Amino acid sequence: MNVAIIGTGLIGGSMAIALKEKKLAAKIIGVENNKLHAEEAIKLGLVDEINELDEAISKSDLIILAVPVSDAEKMIISILEKVDKQVVIDAGSTKNAICETANKSENRKRFVATHPMWGTEFSGPKAAVSGAFVGNAVVICDKENSDKDAVELVEKMYRDFGMNLLYMDSISHDVHAAYVSHISHITSFALANTVLEKEKEEGTIFGMASGGFESTVRLAKSNPDMWVPIFQQNRENVLDVLNEHISQLRKFKSCLEKENYQYLTELIQNSNKIKRILK
Amino acid sequence: MNVAIIGTGLIGGSMAIALKEKKLAAKIIGVENNKLHAEEAIKLGLVDEINELDEAISKSDLIILAVPVSDAEKMIISILEKVDKQVVIDAGSTKNAICETANKSENRKRFVATHPMWGTEFSGPKAAVSGAFVGNAVVICDKENSDKDAVELVEKMYRDFGMNLLYMDSISHDVHAAYVSHISHITSFALANTVLEKEKEEGTIFGMASGGFESTVRLAKSNPDMWVPIFQQNRENVLDVLNEHISQLRKFKSCLEKENYQYLTELIQNSNKIKRILK
Repeated sequence: MNVAIIGTGLIGGSMAIALKEKKLAAKIIGVENNKLHAEEAIKLGLVDEINELDEAISKSDLIILAVPVSDAEKMIISILEKVDKQVVIDAGSTKNAICETANKSENRKRFVATHPMWGTEFSGPKAAVSGAFVGNAVVICDKENSDKDAVELVEKMYRDFGMNLLYMDSISHDVHAAYVSHISHITSFALANTVLEKEKEEGTIFGMASGGFESTVRLAKSNPDMWVPIFQQNRENVLDVLNEHISQLRKFKSCLEKENYQYLTELIQNSNKIKRILK
Repeated sequence: MNVAIIGTGLIGGSMAIALKEKKLAAKIIGVENNKLHAEEAIKLGLVDEINELDEAISKSDLIILAVPVSDAEKMIISILEKVDKQVVIDAGSTKNAICETANKSENRKRFVATHPMWGTEFSGPKAAVSGAFVGNAVVICDKENSDKDAVELVEKMYRDFGMNLLYMDSISHDVHAAYVSHISHITSFALANTVLEKEKEEGTIFGMASGGFESTVRLAKSNPDMWVPIFQQNRENVLDVLNEHISQLRKFKSCLEKENYQYLTELIQNSNKIKRILK
């Protein structure tokens, strides 16, 4: 099949690599507004050609929307209008907004809402990597609103990528994504700002930074163009989890203020239960 | 030389491996109160024998204290009392408390206060790994209070481990360590508790957890026996950074509450400056 990838950055580019490696696409057509990214996507061999949107859609069997979630929501109706038998998917970190918008389209059933749970803190075509999705989960949302053949094509593609398929409604997805992804990014952004704020006083600390620091702060390199629209679309869930996180941090603060090391030990022992989930 | 390692866990065990690999130690003697750990340390070949503390000290040229910082502080005086020409070092994440205590010893000059800036979220002899310290910083504190030959021996050892040597006074060390290490652990513990709290309502989220989540939460597996004493000894600095971190998180919260996405973008752009420091 021919595949159009709208947005040839980290996610779109990595999907292009996976599609080629798994021999799922005869031709990959990129759609890319950013001229530098378009050139890079060609030069890196991520896509075979760069087309305008309409041409790319007409020539493709599968259209993958891999742009910031605000752009995806804006584009989904007009893309579905141009679609006949093609399948359209998105790969965004929020699902309810795009599903609600897509539901207004007569061609809704050609759309499958998906969220491959993989990413890095880097962006653009150069950030695309081989083997990106292997062993991670992909969430397919509201699949009863999509045509069966469309869902099957998408399921096969993600299975071929080596992903574990999960199904849920788009509202639940956004609740869960706030817990397991969005809050980690806010924490990391805030931690970077904490240390950068202190660096004004303390210029020498960075020679000391080791793996633990790097691990908790690396997400702070993530692109605001991608993340602000995610936080905007998932505002209520993110606020809910952020409030809980601040109140959990206040417990640590209170233990230290009151020198209650017994309770501090219990808080840490409780957090150790995360071992059940992360190996 | 013969080396005594008091505490054959993550740090002591990894130092044992490095000492053997770099052919710096003819014999490594473990001192270990935990019987299971003592057996493991022998079985894994980390140490050649397990001795009582006094015997180990008398047979060794270098004594490495790799126990929780509260135990290290308790033991340092009595260890220095038993020392003649031997060199004693510690490897703890806080430096001011042990230095202040050691300063009361007549043998203070045989002690070198060090903090190799490496660790993982695991503990015990089985957590010890080869190549642990390569490319990381080690901080040597208050070196003017140590004999020159003692400092030189320790500098050579850490250089042979592949570490970058930094020097500072023990008070400054503890300030910096709060920024680049201790706060990351509190954030991670609190984030794990946030998600575990929510899991009571939301049992299915863990199939979705991906690299970003794992990265920010992995430190939450860390051992409270090690970390509570660190937070206790570095209480004021950790509280200072924790207060700043909570106020940074409140800025994100306020942006979302007020839907001020321009300021949210600026907050994220500012945090992106961490790229200057982390590659």
